[in-house]
Amino acid sequence: MKVFVVGSNGQVGQHLISLLSQSQEHTVKAMVRKQEQAVAYQALGVETVIADLEGTVEELAQAAKGSDAIIFTAGSGGKTGYDKTLLIDLDGAVKTIEAAEKAGIERFIMVSALQAQHRENWHDAIKPYYVAKHYADKILELSNLNYTIIRPGGLLNESGTGKITVAENIMSGSIPREDVASVVIAALNEEHTFRRSFDLISGEEHITTALKQI
Amino acid sequence: MKVFVVGSNGQVGQHLISLLSQSQEHTVKAMVRKQEQAVAYQALGVETVIADLEGTVEELAQAAKGSDAIIFTAGSGGKTGYDKTLLIDLDGAVKTIEAAEKAGIERFIMVSALQAQHRENWHDAIKPYYVAKHYADKILELSNLNYTIIRPGGLLNESGTGKITVAENIMSGSIPREDVASVVIAALNEEHTFRRSFDLISGEEHITTALKQI
Repeated sequence: MKVFVVGSNGQVGQHLISLLSQSQEHTVKAMVRKQEQAVAYQALGVETVIADLEGTVEELAQAAKGSDAIIFTAGSGGKTGYDKTLLIDLDGAVKTIEAAEKAGIERFIMVSALQAQHRENWHDAIKPYYVAKHYADKILELSNLNYTIIRPGGLLNESGTGKITVAENIMSGSIPREDVASVVIAALNEEHTFRRSFDLISGEEHITTALKQI
Repeated sequence: MKVFVVGSNGQVGQHLISLLSQSQEHTVKAMVRKQEQAVAYQALGVETVIADLEGTVEELAQAAKGSDAIIFTAGSGGKTGYDKTLLIDLDGAVKTIEAAEKAGIERFIMVSALQAQHRENWHDAIKPYYVAKHYADKILELSNLNYTIIRPGGLLNESGTGKITVAENIMSGSIPREDVASVVIAALNEEHTFRRSFDLISGEEHITTALKQI
């Protein structure tokens, strides 16, 4: 599969680009926002395209064209205000969904957040962030795309273990970013994950086994 | 009809409560957030209930129970941050939609914003606000409720004229808040507005005539 990654310069995104670049099965196109980010990836031999989630659906569709799958792992992050949460995490995500429809790219994997599906479990301190993730996920579930929504727990910078727990409803937990990236890639062709949404934390099962059992 | 108003203490909301209190056809229940707001309305003989859009769907359903229609005209306003835009204008609106479903109240009128349906026409300065309105409207359109989404232009504090222009797509314009309230009330039983969304500005047609022609 040719995989288009939105949020390539983020922390999960960097693991995704690295793993996809080494993959025998997939090729990757990294969407980045800035020229210097493009130059850095190109120096590593990674195909890049410059586009902005605050741009138009048409621009995003042009950037994604020719890919077989889209991974959305972008986020405005904690350093900008909730204006950017609305513009990037919510509207940017939905524009990417609309771009996928426009470009005829059926497979779409969304990196969301643990318990984004259940309002009553949102942490007070970042409740508005969950609102944005919740509705982006909801719009994707109501689309005709072949989606997988992966909702990881607290993201760690430790090395991946390759072992996870996945289920439709996990109350709490954490997971290394590297493992999140591995799960996303393993899900690309795993039919058990098609049109499914699930929580993800570190656990005892190997990734491929775990994804076959949800 | 018994009409439940969410956002009763807002500027459009106050016109709604005033007009509905004088109506021969309807009765009103005003949802307010604070005790002092409840006391003020009760002194005018208006039935009130205290509930909070940051509360649960269950609480909102309890507050609305026994009503025949819900009008949503709440907004966090310009004085709070975009965190409240996410929590009130988007999630609060959708919680009210879910409360309507839960309480079996089919008729739902949303006061939105001119051109909230078209990203390319959002004013830069308040783009994140449009994002919130856009997705609240979208979720309502995807619901099974008998909705009307009314998207007024720039809101004025002048007296109403009773004359309007309505259409699915109006590029710009303004309208007194009092006229917005009159249109919302006229729409309650007007079948031409059922499961429809439209822009609204001041114009040349009487409200009842205009609503019959969209």
